[in-house]
Amino acid sequence: MTNTADATKIILDCDPGHDDAMAILLAIGNPKIDLIGVTTVGGNQSLDKVTYNARATLEAAGATDVPVRAGCDRPILRPLKVAAAVHGESGLDGVELPEPSRPLDEGHAVNWIIDTIMSNEPGTITLVPTGPLTNIAMAVRLEPRIVDRVKEVVLMGGGYHVGNCSAVAEFNVATDPEAARIVFNEKWPLTMVGLDLTHQALCTPEVQGRIDAIGTDLAHFASGLMDFFRKAYRNNQDFIDPPVHDPCTVAYLIDPDVMTTRRCPLDVETHDGPALGMTVADLRGPEPSAEECHTQVAVKLDFDRFWNLIIDAIKAIG
Amino acid sequence: MTNTADATKIILDCDPGHDDAMAILLAIGNPKIDLIGVTTVGGNQSLDKVTYNARATLEAAGATDVPVRAGCDRPILRPLKVAAAVHGESGLDGVELPEPSRPLDEGHAVNWIIDTIMSNEPGTITLVPTGPLTNIAMAVRLEPRIVDRVKEVVLMGGGYHVGNCSAVAEFNVATDPEAARIVFNEKWPLTMVGLDLTHQALCTPEVQGRIDAIGTDLAHFASGLMDFFRKAYRNNQDFIDPPVHDPCTVAYLIDPDVMTTRRCPLDVETHDGPALGMTVADLRGPEPSAEECHTQVAVKLDFDRFWNLIIDAIKAIG
Amino acid sequence: MTNTADATKIILDCDPGHDDAMAILLAIGNPKIDLIGVTTVGGNQSLDKVTYNARATLEAAGATDVPVRAGCDRPILRPLKVAAAVHGESGLDGVELPEPSRPLDEGHAVNWIIDTIMSNEPGTITLVPTGPLTNIAMAVRLEPRIVDRVKEVVLMGGGYHVGNCSAVAEFNVATDPEAARIVFNEKWPLTMVGLDLTHQALCTPEVQGRIDAIGTDLAHFASGLMDFFRKAYRNNQDFIDPPVHDPCTVAYLIDPDVMTTRRCPLDVETHDGPALGMTVADLRGPEPSAEECHTQVAVKLDFDRFWNLIIDAIKAIG
Amino acid sequence: MTNTADATKIILDCDPGHDDAMAILLAIGNPKIDLIGVTTVGGNQSLDKVTYNARATLEAAGATDVPVRAGCDRPILRPLKVAAAVHGESGLDGVELPEPSRPLDEGHAVNWIIDTIMSNEPGTITLVPTGPLTNIAMAVRLEPRIVDRVKEVVLMGGGYHVGNCSAVAEFNVATDPEAARIVFNEKWPLTMVGLDLTHQALCTPEVQGRIDAIGTDLAHFASGLMDFFRKAYRNNQDFIDPPVHDPCTVAYLIDPDVMTTRRCPLDVETHDGPALGMTVADLRGPEPSAEECHTQVAVKLDFDRFWNLIIDAIKAIG
Repeated sequence: MTNTADATKIILDCDPGHDDAMAILLAIGNPKIDLIGVTTVGGNQSLDKVTYNARATLEAAGATDVPVRAGCDRPILRPLKVAAAVHGESGLDGVELPEPSRPLDEGHAVNWIIDTIMSNEPGTITLVPTGPLTNIAMAVRLEPRIVDRVKEVVLMGGGYHVGNCSAVAEFNVATDPEAARIVFNEKWPLTMVGLDLTHQALCTPEVQGRIDAIGTDLAHFASGLMDFFRKAYRNNQDFIDPPVHDPCTVAYLIDPDVMTTRRCPLDVETHDGPALGMTVADLRGPEPSAEECHTQVAVKLDFDRFWNLIIDAIKAIG
Repeated sequence: MTNTADATKIILDCDPGHDDAMAILLAIGNPKIDLIGVTTVGGNQSLDKVTYNARATLEAAGATDVPVRAGCDRPILRPLKVAAAVHGESGLDGVELPEPSRPLDEGHAVNWIIDTIMSNEPGTITLVPTGPLTNIAMAVRLEPRIVDRVKEVVLMGGGYHVGNCSAVAEFNVATDPEAARIVFNEKWPLTMVGLDLTHQALCTPEVQGRIDAIGTDLAHFASGLMDFFRKAYRNNQDFIDPPVHDPCTVAYLIDPDVMTTRRCPLDVETHDGPALGMTVADLRGPEPSAEECHTQVAVKLDFDRFWNLIIDAIKAIG
Repeated sequence: MTNTADATKIILDCDPGHDDAMAILLAIGNPKIDLIGVTTVGGNQSLDKVTYNARATLEAAGATDVPVRAGCDRPILRPLKVAAAVHGESGLDGVELPEPSRPLDEGHAVNWIIDTIMSNEPGTITLVPTGPLTNIAMAVRLEPRIVDRVKEVVLMGGGYHVGNCSAVAEFNVATDPEAARIVFNEKWPLTMVGLDLTHQALCTPEVQGRIDAIGTDLAHFASGLMDFFRKAYRNNQDFIDPPVHDPCTVAYLIDPDVMTTRRCPLDVETHDGPALGMTVADLRGPEPSAEECHTQVAVKLDFDRFWNLIIDAIKAIG
Repeated sequence: MTNTADATKIILDCDPGHDDAMAILLAIGNPKIDLIGVTTVGGNQSLDKVTYNARATLEAAGATDVPVRAGCDRPILRPLKVAAAVHGESGLDGVELPEPSRPLDEGHAVNWIIDTIMSNEPGTITLVPTGPLTNIAMAVRLEPRIVDRVKEVVLMGGGYHVGNCSAVAEFNVATDPEAARIVFNEKWPLTMVGLDLTHQALCTPEVQGRIDAIGTDLAHFASGLMDFFRKAYRNNQDFIDPPVHDPCTVAYLIDPDVMTTRRCPLDVETHDGPALGMTVADLRGPEPSAEECHTQVAVKLDFDRFWNLIIDAIKAIG
């Protein structure tokens, strides 16, 4: 895969996870994205498992040039509760994972994130967190200067009107709400791609048929992920088709027109009440400007455009 | 005004307040509602002011047979912050209030609510709170047996996706969130008519023209309330037309078809974070049955049906 | 029992409870105390049980002229967790209770407290809460004017350096911390007789021997209470001798020299963390004056003086 | 200064701060302590200031072989509120600071702490935090294996019965209560040297006279620190003589007999109520064993033994 000259350099901080794997594939398979590294965080499953899954997914995509570094194994304040009901015991149940040929890269994910941002030109690195925000929060507390040097943060997490692990809280934010609060309150440009948006990114039978029709091993791998994910969402979340959350972030970086957004102040509830882990979006009044407000939320997905990107990426990887 | 034989006996627990006053007029002017008493609570303005306003509104409507009793002057745990920006210094700014001819009725609102419920047949009294829920929460803690004897609670407050005094909190619930938590968690049938619904109940110029056209003193009084309310909402809340929250509760009791509802678990956030005072509605999955879930939220207003009820009531009072 | 002309009129708001029963006996048996009524609250056991126990204790003391009224059956916000491990299934295990000859008095404790305070001369009624502060908090929210009319509040509860149901929380305050917060923050003169003091009021074998030596049925009753209380404290609280908390309040009203006190600001922690239910006393710096600070804590007990009062009271009742 | 063969290797994580400076002097001047590095954290003053102060204090003591590394500049979740009222604008007001000849050492304090612990033999490194616990908490979340490799943690902070920045909270813990909660809950042996102990470590005029009598520049430097500290504590904290908190930790490592301790469970209150930042010690019941409980609190100081250590250290440095 040759990236375009103006490809967006991203660090994908993830916890694969079926939809994280799809985000990896999209980042690998689209020339507008330069995936300079994958970092992992305890979330959907334990750190060891999700780190293995990230490496295996890159192996499946033939992207052995992409380094993977492991980060924090648990949230800052709270114990980790993994999402085995949604992602299985391995974190990526439903497919046979290839043995990664590239060894795990050395160094802690948090330090590598810091070093990478500080050693690249300001405004060139985009952070794409699709798991709990522990690594990003730790990085910003260890090295506050990264805030001014990052181009932007585009994360999957939260929801302004929708929850999944409680009435109003989404899994990534609810897993480490304190980390999310830290990340949301730093003054970098931040786009929250939350459940409001990702619940539109359903892998319908028609979509999955298009993936199957590609006919490659990787397409078969992706389709296997979707099979398991469909079953898990039917059994646990009252969904017919599974929402494929995480690649929506990458898709937005490839083509902002894949979704509409609305700028609004965001905060995170960290108290142990019924709204714990909620991303509180202030949608009252007229939309503020980018100068007035550094955060925005994703609102409406262009379904076809999104899935075309995914399918094109799988095809492009070959 | 002669009520129908099957008129619904209601206690209106309010803090007038321009929209509370409209709720009083609707309750007085519709034969399907038997307004057996008005009780007051500190909220939009101080207890003294809202109590006077309730009496003056009944006087304006010629309803001197309806008793008014004063209740709690402040929330259970928190200090009272009145809404002078929305309702003015008097709590009912914008009109000249008639001197009430009926003296304030004796006894505390909370005790009267209890005594009335306990001395009437079970299942005959409906509570209609349109202010902070302090009185109702105090009543249920003083006399827990009222829960089983009340027919239902239909309250204005909260919002599952909308806030007004914060990003996610509505004034009545945010004023006394602990009281709201108590009331929402008791096992009586409860309908939350929140901002999601009441922001549809806008007093448009066309609607107000119809009120003006009635031509009576009372219509003039109601229109004067709406003039002030429009200005206050334009200046403070980014609204063109004011949402007339409180009478939506009474309208629902007159004609349930005036709105659609959805059954869902409800709780109230009482911690001092960004979601303080939020009514947390669990809208995930299929709608539960009335046996599974004693609470529901109001969703969609039939605008014309609603305003027809209001206008008919003003006409009927004469 | 004839009270002295200047006897202190008290309302004992309690949840008997072995030590509450001792407080009743002291109030009955000392001529400087005019026990104008007993009110009950859910706490050590359910409201029904503690109300019966209050009546039975008065019966045992021959004080059938003292009215008993039942109050709130549960804390304002939280569920009631009774202290069966300390007080047994009946709330007064270990003795045979006489059948009360006087029927339960009518009316709710909270209303009776309000009516009594408002109908007596200002500054003449002392509140002596020895259970959770639910009734007192409800009373002050229903009728705020009682704050200025009460002479003082002398309560058993809390502890500035000692907890019993958690590391730092005492049972009465921890049972209804929100009620305690309300009561502590009202501007009446308030003396907190907490565990710091009451853990000095141990019923040693020597003391109990003196009770036994009185030889009356009532002394036998009191001694039976102490037998059970000793066992419960040995089994559950790592005490050799049981601390007899509640009568310390009454003793202080009979003779302030029975204890030393220190004036200090007091508040109550109501958040669900490790300090939930703690009474936070600010003991830094020089002691404030009564004008600067309306609250004080009990510090050091005069052991002999205290037990002499108890024993004299039991003798005096006969 | 030649350390003894069995000298305790410590990392002093501090925010000088007058008493932090005294801790540095004691660590430098006592042969039983091998101060392998100083790390700094935003606390008493900004990170830049306290880092300079640490370097200048080492310069004053001629200890230019001790590396200093800067750590986190703010608490994990909350904004930093420095203690300028106690330590002045520089953080070390009252003395002229020598220009440090050794440049600031490279690398982040948190990473250096981790690397040092992981590269030394297990059980050989003692952590001595005398500021907010941000660095230590960050280190343990970045590298959880340090918990099993550290010999022990002996920290100045908290108080089981005493507060200074609130009724019940001490400055270091209150500055970053979440960090403290993390550190207290990890299963390493931890000794909390809190205000209960350090308020006994008063620099009386007699003590200061002994420091003055040493007659060296360093003694003059130390005495200057104490002069300012005395004034600050008189003006702000109602103390006659200043409590010299931080060196108590080092003194305990030199000679455990300098204080008595009591083993007890410890936790930290992180909710925004009146007990925010309190170290909640469970002192009920019999003292647990080291197997049952990994935390202990300092109770009683041997005043003479403590000050002898300080004075001997100042003399020994020369």
